[in-house]
Amino acid sequence: MKNNHQKIAVVALGGNALLPENQQGTFAEQQANADAAAEVILGIVGSGYEVIIVHGNGPQVGQILAQNEESAHKIPMMPLDVCVAATQGTMGYMLSTALQRAIKESGIPKNTLSILTNVVVSQNDPAFQKPTKPIGGFFSREIAEEMAAEKGWQVVEDSGRGYRRVVPSPQPLSIMESEAIRELALAGNIVIACGGGGIPVALIDGQLIGLEAVIDKDLASSLLAAEIGADLYILLTGVDQVAVDYGQPNMRYLKKMKVSEAEKYLDEGHFPPGSMGPKIKAALDYIAAGGQEVLITSAEKLKEALEGESGTYIVA
Amino acid sequence: MKNNHQKIAVVALGGNALLPENQQGTFAEQQANADAAAEVILGIVGSGYEVIIVHGNGPQVGQILAQNEESAHKIPMMPLDVCVAATQGTMGYMLSTALQRAIKESGIPKNTLSILTNVVVSQNDPAFQKPTKPIGGFFSREIAEEMAAEKGWQVVEDSGRGYRRVVPSPQPLSIMESEAIRELALAGNIVIACGGGGIPVALIDGQLIGLEAVIDKDLASSLLAAEIGADLYILLTGVDQVAVDYGQPNMRYLKKMKVSEAEKYLDEGHFPPGSMGPKIKAALDYIAAGGQEVLITSAEKLKEALEGESGTYIVA
Repeated sequence: MKNNHQKIAVVALGGNALLPENQQGTFAEQQANADAAAEVILGIVGSGYEVIIVHGNGPQVGQILAQNEESAHKIPMMPLDVCVAATQGTMGYMLSTALQRAIKESGIPKNTLSILTNVVVSQNDPAFQKPTKPIGGFFSREIAEEMAAEKGWQVVEDSGRGYRRVVPSPQPLSIMESEAIRELALAGNIVIACGGGGIPVALIDGQLIGLEAVIDKDLASSLLAAEIGADLYILLTGVDQVAVDYGQPNMRYLKKMKVSEAEKYLDEGHFPPGSMGPKIKAALDYIAAGGQEVLITSAEKLKEALEGESGTYIVA
Repeated sequence: MKNNHQKIAVVALGGNALLPENQQGTFAEQQANADAAAEVILGIVGSGYEVIIVHGNGPQVGQILAQNEESAHKIPMMPLDVCVAATQGTMGYMLSTALQRAIKESGIPKNTLSILTNVVVSQNDPAFQKPTKPIGGFFSREIAEEMAAEKGWQVVEDSGRGYRRVVPSPQPLSIMESEAIRELALAGNIVIACGGGGIPVALIDGQLIGLEAVIDKDLASSLLAAEIGADLYILLTGVDQVAVDYGQPNMRYLKKMKVSEAEKYLDEGHFPPGSMGPKIKAALDYIAAGGQEVLITSAEKLKEALEGESGTYIVA
């Protein structure tokens, strides 16, 4: 049960933060990135919040898929939902041990817990008819067409960099473990949950079945923040602050937006679909569901932002 | 907090139960095996216990290692501790969705939760000097020697079936998440924890670091049962009952053993190291640490055993 002094923050962290594009993804690299992320997370704890971390898994699930493909002649390939579950294991482990190291350093008395998280979607979600989320490595057109014919993949050309597989990215409807996640956070644990947006499952003829899809981490973390009644929902991203007229001479950084302003700017096209758009939508979803406050900022500026010196706040 | 009516059972389930030697390990096979295991687990719930499941991961971590090796030219290999974490993700997911299906069928009002579990070992454990636990596939002598030279593997000849890599299997000392696991079980969840014996971690110069090793699932589940004060510790195995003079004309099945009897039979060599020995030792460890009661039986006979009609009980 929540006491009057407790505040919960849900923080969404990109999979790229733990495996950026310019790295190969060795264990040493990922562990060092996890250590850096853990320092940032502890800053939120230091500001007086119980913290729940939702991490993305784009590059990591891409690697696990590639391992499955490369060894398919020897080991049966696992479906995409199982690969997402694998990243909840590997990334949850790397983050929780990194947090333990950071905790030890700081002297803050906290435990960490990683919870495997299943997220309910609908099998009738239109995303299953029209997969749009690129995943895994880049292929030449020839190889991509071969894969499409052989394995039934849907492939698309991705920003001139080659062809990639696309998979369905359905809307998250509910998070099966949210009650336990909330209780564990209130018991004083830093909780890692809903990794990679959660493992997509659906009730099909009354039976819970996994589906081959990936759930957007921003949408899933927004839903989790709403379901558990988080006091603050933090979206960590590549920029320190949200801007309107981005890249234009009259570009203006925003310290605070009301929902009505965010909606207006979104309608006016200030937040493009490929970058800030999904984050603003995730923020608005959370507030529409009764959420209080959203902070969008970079890992580098999070500490300042929590003190009101940087970042962009969105409020009801 | 535990109320007077609540009883906790920790049940240890072999990785082979979810991927037997005669199967390839396709997802369909593993899911069907998980569904069968879930039915068995619900039998324990039906007998009035809060249930914590510890599964092995021998075949599964072998497959993930093989996938890492086959794709090492493309994707950086992960160390063994990360591979164990991956199996906690994949197997926890398969078991928890299977349990959800079985729960739905039965109408028993339970949730399921999978907790990533880190188990503390000592970096000075003699196991790190002398790896003994075979893992992954079989190789010819030539390939095995090549791997040993190239990757620093330790390899052994395994029962005439070829050569295998051996890895350290250190003694588990404490389970980092045991308090949360206990609370979640008492809150009415079926908890999946300590998968594959747990992810081996150690405090090295005061810092928590993962180690390349695997922890015996029987020893880890015994320790977990002791740490959380389980009322019953169930070891599921290939035989319905423990026997003395196994395979001899005077073979005798045991319905109940006191600790003193189990110790005597163990000393007399009735329980060989490769089969029943480790299970009896795990049972004795749990009771020595204050545990109440152990049940050793097969999945097939578990229901009868819980009614006192089969299985072997070991009591303090």
